[in-house]
Amino acid sequence: MGSLLIEGCDLLWVENGEVRFLQRQDIWIEGAFIKAIEPSGTLNPQENPERLPAEKLLAIPGLINTHAHVPMVLFRGLAEDVPIESWFNDYIFPLESNLTPEDVYWGALLGLAEMIEAGITSVADHYFFMDEVAQAVSEAGLRANLVWAVFGHEGEEKLARTAQFVQRWQGAAEGRITTWMGPHAPYTTTPEFLRLCARYAHDLGVGVHIHVSETADQVSFSYKQYGKSPVRVLLDSGVLDVPTILAHCLYPEEEDVRILADHPVGIAHAPKTYMKLGMGTAPVTKFRQAGISVGLATDGVVSNNTLDILEQMRLLALTQKDAAHDSTVMPIAEVLDIAFYGGAKVMRQNQRLGVLKPGYLADITLVRQDEIAGFPRYNPAANLIYSVSARDVDTVICNGNVLMRNRQLLTLDKETIKAEVQKRLERLTQRVPGRRIATYPIWRKPG
Amino acid sequence: MGSLLIEGCDLLWVENGEVRFLQRQDIWIEGAFIKAIEPSGTLNPQENPERLPAEKLLAIPGLINTHAHVPMVLFRGLAEDVPIESWFNDYIFPLESNLTPEDVYWGALLGLAEMIEAGITSVADHYFFMDEVAQAVSEAGLRANLVWAVFGHEGEEKLARTAQFVQRWQGAAEGRITTWMGPHAPYTTTPEFLRLCARYAHDLGVGVHIHVSETADQVSFSYKQYGKSPVRVLLDSGVLDVPTILAHCLYPEEEDVRILADHPVGIAHAPKTYMKLGMGTAPVTKFRQAGISVGLATDGVVSNNTLDILEQMRLLALTQKDAAHDSTVMPIAEVLDIAFYGGAKVMRQNQRLGVLKPGYLADITLVRQDEIAGFPRYNPAANLIYSVSARDVDTVICNGNVLMRNRQLLTLDKETIKAEVQKRLERLTQRVPGRRIATYPIWRKPG
Repeated sequence: MGSLLIEGCDLLWVENGEVRFLQRQDIWIEGAFIKAIEPSGTLNPQENPERLPAEKLLAIPGLINTHAHVPMVLFRGLAEDVPIESWFNDYIFPLESNLTPEDVYWGALLGLAEMIEAGITSVADHYFFMDEVAQAVSEAGLRANLVWAVFGHEGEEKLARTAQFVQRWQGAAEGRITTWMGPHAPYTTTPEFLRLCARYAHDLGVGVHIHVSETADQVSFSYKQYGKSPVRVLLDSGVLDVPTILAHCLYPEEEDVRILADHPVGIAHAPKTYMKLGMGTAPVTKFRQAGISVGLATDGVVSNNTLDILEQMRLLALTQKDAAHDSTVMPIAEVLDIAFYGGAKVMRQNQRLGVLKPGYLADITLVRQDEIAGFPRYNPAANLIYSVSARDVDTVICNGNVLMRNRQLLTLDKETIKAEVQKRLERLTQRVPGRRIATYPIWRKPG
Repeated sequence: MGSLLIEGCDLLWVENGEVRFLQRQDIWIEGAFIKAIEPSGTLNPQENPERLPAEKLLAIPGLINTHAHVPMVLFRGLAEDVPIESWFNDYIFPLESNLTPEDVYWGALLGLAEMIEAGITSVADHYFFMDEVAQAVSEAGLRANLVWAVFGHEGEEKLARTAQFVQRWQGAAEGRITTWMGPHAPYTTTPEFLRLCARYAHDLGVGVHIHVSETADQVSFSYKQYGKSPVRVLLDSGVLDVPTILAHCLYPEEEDVRILADHPVGIAHAPKTYMKLGMGTAPVTKFRQAGISVGLATDGVVSNNTLDILEQMRLLALTQKDAAHDSTVMPIAEVLDIAFYGGAKVMRQNQRLGVLKPGYLADITLVRQDEIAGFPRYNPAANLIYSVSARDVDTVICNGNVLMRNRQLLTLDKETIKAEVQKRLERLTQRVPGRRIATYPIWRKPG
């Protein structure tokens, strides 16, 4: 069990709505955990630890991405400026029919490399061929909650196999991997199918990660088909009785908010996707006032183009101020609370992640603060949200292990990954008419 | 007169709404101008030029910032999460009362350094102590349109001195500096004062750079005070008869759009500021459909936190899609047209800037394309807008001179500038009650 001493960094300590900027701190890590944080030079570890000089770097909790489809980095830039129905039916679902397990493995490694470079140490991933994603996570060194996405039309046998995946990988990679159930969405399954998912989750002692209420059309479709909102469909099928990550939830009904507040639910919020697809945005402040946890998410790269939680922090603040026409909403302390503690809470890891303090897991991101765009440094938290780039992330530590140092990836070989991806691109970009992994329902005439 | 050959870069050629991605090109620069662009290896300059290897870099027109208050970088992060009235009256105007000419000089150098690092080669700057800003521009090597901001309460003598500034610096720094008149806004001047500004501009053969219609309150205040919109006030005072940069113009009346379309006017659009201050956004598509030029702008760093046009390109696309609830609006080609050609048109430089082609000025930005966040590279233009960071800018050329190479600034000493700024900060951040350079009118009760 290794011992590591991060020396002389500044530190952003955020807890219970309070933000403190601490200068020149040492962080002592024993194994996977933070053992102590004290003013630089005052700690005396007996174990002669490995030393990591970090002067002028800003330590923040490793960033948490509460909803992604990591291997979709393979398709970055292939579906631009198209309506959401076409985005699914003409691009995503046809493109995904090209994927082999090996493609997903290399795509996952590419996306995990991008996330480490952006300071992300935890991700909730929702995709398929998840054995390959788990293998990639195991090698990359991040922490991940993984679900094998399943559509209703794939049937109960497929569902059973996704439950086997849950058992196969639960707690793997020194405990960095957790696994849940992953029905795609209420609009691509049935209430009966969801009930079965919930039962699996309950019996396995795990949670569910699912898309819900992404568009107003989805909600009205649900009323037409079932006489109730998508959130109610989830409630009545038992999904909300287990821990649940709800991706997006832009259009909750008033009753939905009350339902969600009474259940072990967290919202994954991905504002760049919402802007890019013209979806509107979620009532983040209302969720939080109701006591519902919100964390940040990148979603997949075909809607979002990057796997970058710092960018989502910036867009969270900007979109909420914009939507409210009020510059005082979503202040700095709240953005930090959502990104750090909120993300950990949505992942059900808030007892050990989301704050830099002794006893918590050593998932730490160190960010450069010497760029001109972050100078003067009156307000390091404002700089983090409004001026910093993911390119300023210098060092990333997860579970006590250093994954990147001075922007050099230590667990992954970037050039090999890029070369492996490059040679697959021509095949992956073919779109064969009529061949797709699923169909997004079109409730209104396009245009 | 130097000769420079940029070798083997890719190139984004955007003209008349068409976007072409050209691979492996050489760009031959003679003096301040582009002499030829051809497939790599096919050019044979006689003059034995300096060679600049640029393989894998993407050449784009040097970015154009159509409205800024560059020296405000001195106050980055000092006015967060406050309402617009407080932003002006409790922060900006009191803080600015601390500024000496020498502060402005060092602030300008800091902001110009940030802009070069972000690939910006032209800026329209609206501030005071502009001799110092002009001196800084002269040293930094960028191109700038400079106005000395003036408020109505400062009187006619001050206005006359800003006109003297126009004459003093017109065409300076090898023609890189142009100078216009800079009345602050209709709400901080009077129609008579504006008429005088317009007359100066007309007599000097220059344009006017002014803020207008930033909030709905400003527009209704104008109706109450003058019985007409702020744009009509500008029209009737003769301002729109000379070339005019209108900063922001978020709330034009229907009639205003027709007026602007009939005059030599360009709109400076700064979406990050609008989101951050909860101001709404401008009807960019409507402006363009009416034939009104729109360029991108950073505004000042106290509202925007960065001087970064790549970020404004991203936010232009995202905010317009979001406002329209339509993912097909503001497609990639239009974003590029606004950023490149639109910026040049707003600056009245579209006969020699905004496109990379022979005969045009050699203002060129070279961007790295090898970051994971920009891989795969199916769609280099989408990557530029949605994935690239200002930190990926590698090399910047303005007027045929290399200002940055491999991220090293060649004209400015970053550490000296930061040290000079640092020692001024304590004095600059004092806010003395009642001491401010101007007062923003409060038309409604706060809260």
